[in-house]
Amino acid sequence: MTTATLDDLQIGFRQAMRRVAATVSVVAVQRGSERHGTTATSLTSISMDPPSILVCFHKTGRLHDFLHDQERFSVNVLHTDNLATSQAFASPLTAEERFAIGDWRTDAEGGLFLADAQVNLFCIKEREVSYGSHTIFIGRVVGVRTRSDISPLIYSDGGYSGCATLSGKVTD
Amino acid sequence: MTTATLDDLQIGFRQAMRRVAATVSVVAVQRGSERHGTTATSLTSISMDPPSILVCFHKTGRLHDFLHDQERFSVNVLHTDNLATSQAFASPLTAEERFAIGDWRTDAEGGLFLADAQVNLFCIKEREVSYGSHTIFIGRVVGVRTRSDISPLIYSDGGYSGCATLSGKVTD
Repeated sequence: MTTATLDDLQIGFRQAMRRVAATVSVVAVQRGSERHGTTATSLTSISMDPPSILVCFHKTGRLHDFLHDQERFSVNVLHTDNLATSQAFASPLTAEERFAIGDWRTDAEGGLFLADAQVNLFCIKEREVSYGSHTIFIGRVVGVRTRSDISPLIYSDGGYSGCATLSGKVTD
Repeated sequence: MTTATLDDLQIGFRQAMRRVAATVSVVAVQRGSERHGTTATSLTSISMDPPSILVCFHKTGRLHDFLHDQERFSVNVLHTDNLATSQAFASPLTAEERFAIGDWRTDAEGGLFLADAQVNLFCIKEREVSYGSHTIFIGRVVGVRTRSDISPLIYSDGGYSGCATLSGKVTD
């Protein structure tokens, strides 16, 4: 490890995180008659018991306020078929323009979900952990929908990818 | 969303998380003359300022105790070349047997790192957040090494993959 200034570290950390491939999700929240959603790659499962996940968002983002205000949110893990939805929810489009891209629906409990996503996780927010510029939102999963064909949309090195099985290399 | 029992939910959640592709890392900790490490897919960056990440581990795991006891740990994000290292650190091998698989080194500050990993993140543990069966460990990144060729090792649908660029589909 070389000694580095904070600027050097931030540049190095940014380069490092470009090398961490992550599945793309759209996190969506309904607040009264308003809805909002944004693309995220910070999804991680925490535990199976209870089924739970976390997502991290910058405190200055508009979705952060929605997540802070509301009890429920959904995580819509994207399929490679959902590329246009990923791009829309990471763009300057308004919320309503974003939700026009993809087959968005509302369930009986008012949960927003993308019908042809790889996975829909319906979550109840259980905790918010503030850290620096971001908040870690912990959600308990109370409902799950999955799409049978498996082809998660991945973001890596500044672009979109799918998975390519390492055939012949896997021994376990 | 259908009403589900906890068992149904856990089965559904497990199926769902198989569909979330994640980059594989080995988290490593030195404690006196002992060292331990294990494969993890729960890495997420939190913020750029300060550069910071989180990882989640089950409280009954051996690495959990090492992380709880020590101030420093490393996250070694794996390259597709590091497949054997991933398998070793997810196996019943002892710690010393695991560290024999791959080019593991120790830096001047005692930080363990895999020299040919995709990325090495040298972290100082800043916070532990207990949630259910797991602990979320928050690390401030104080040093970074990156490998220039980009080919992160991915775990998805119960197997190992690499990235395959969605050429022709990306418009941004």
